[in-house]
Amino acid sequence: MSESIPDNFESELEVNSGENGLDGSEISFVIGQSVELPTMDESKRPIIGYEYVDHTADIQLHAWAPKLQDAFIQCAYAMFAYMTDLDTVDIASSVELQAEATGDGLDSLLYHFLDELLFHFSAEYFVPKTIEITKFDREALKIDVTISGEDFELSKHPQGTEVKAITYSNLQIHEKENMCDVFVIVDI
Amino acid sequence: MSESIPDNFESELEVNSGENGLDGSEISFVIGQSVELPTMDESKRPIIGYEYVDHTADIQLHAWAPKLQDAFIQCAYAMFAYMTDLDTVDIASSVELQAEATGDGLDSLLYHFLDELLFHFSAEYFVPKTIEITKFDREALKIDVTISGEDFELSKHPQGTEVKAITYSNLQIHEKENMCDVFVIVDI
Repeated sequence: MSESIPDNFESELEVNSGENGLDGSEISFVIGQSVELPTMDESKRPIIGYEYVDHTADIQLHAWAPKLQDAFIQCAYAMFAYMTDLDTVDIASSVELQAEATGDGLDSLLYHFLDELLFHFSAEYFVPKTIEITKFDREALKIDVTISGEDFELSKHPQGTEVKAITYSNLQIHEKENMCDVFVIVDI
Repeated sequence: MSESIPDNFESELEVNSGENGLDGSEISFVIGQSVELPTMDESKRPIIGYEYVDHTADIQLHAWAPKLQDAFIQCAYAMFAYMTDLDTVDIASSVELQAEATGDGLDSLLYHFLDELLFHFSAEYFVPKTIEITKFDREALKIDVTISGEDFELSKHPQGTEVKAITYSNLQIHEKENMCDVFVIVDI
């Protein structure tokens, strides 16, 4: 299964793995580099060729549950399930994390909840199998969350597409009497 | 090699191939769908869960050559090399195509040149091994191009990432005395 799950960066290199252009010229690869003119030192680049610059992508997560805090949790599962197959994750340890809004209400709380989990993944490579909100304080806009799982290992966990950042772009929380929907766009 | 080359659509399905959410609820997949509220009929969706909506991505192609028409050709190679490994393409037949600007100069000519090649790929699944510009009329803003290659076959040609559309966004043509650079952002 892991072969069929892409790492976008590697796959772009893979797609263009021919050493030479069809005209016999060398093809250079500069991927994920910010756009500049020229993107390469012209004295070093082949006289004719091409490169791929500045890949951008995002995906919108949509999660729902009768209770808002469960919709938050589902949204976090959606984020981690995009990065690997959570069925392959076992529980080796648990970590308690806190998230707090920075002022603009539940939107900010959701953003910081996901951002805290993503930061912990990026810093510790910790993938949660279970995510439990132990305190959901709507007034103080604070969340205490306990995540249980293990460190990410390529040999065990199929590599999906990395979520690079949470965004506020079009972040939506819709609360109805019996159902809450949340929408979060993340950079990948 | 082909396993390591992603088809983004399939890979997103793959990443989330667990039949059940960690809470035991069914996970639904709605990928590449425009955002609506709700994205699914609430009476049909599981009571708790998540989905992925509205994936967007683009990549900037940068090509260069001493002659502008060769930079156009390199840009077309970049486009097709992103969709498959051109080293696996053989020449079975040739096709002559024409491209014409719709008024705003060389930018429009480059756009329509790439768009004509992409349309031919989308309509006929024809992948070029060689791209030859037989007429490059800067005054009339017309291009005659002959592409030689064969029909795309998954069994023979590794699947890269499909280029869905050419865009005018930040399209740039920089002509200097001995070098031309072109930049084109394409939707993937």
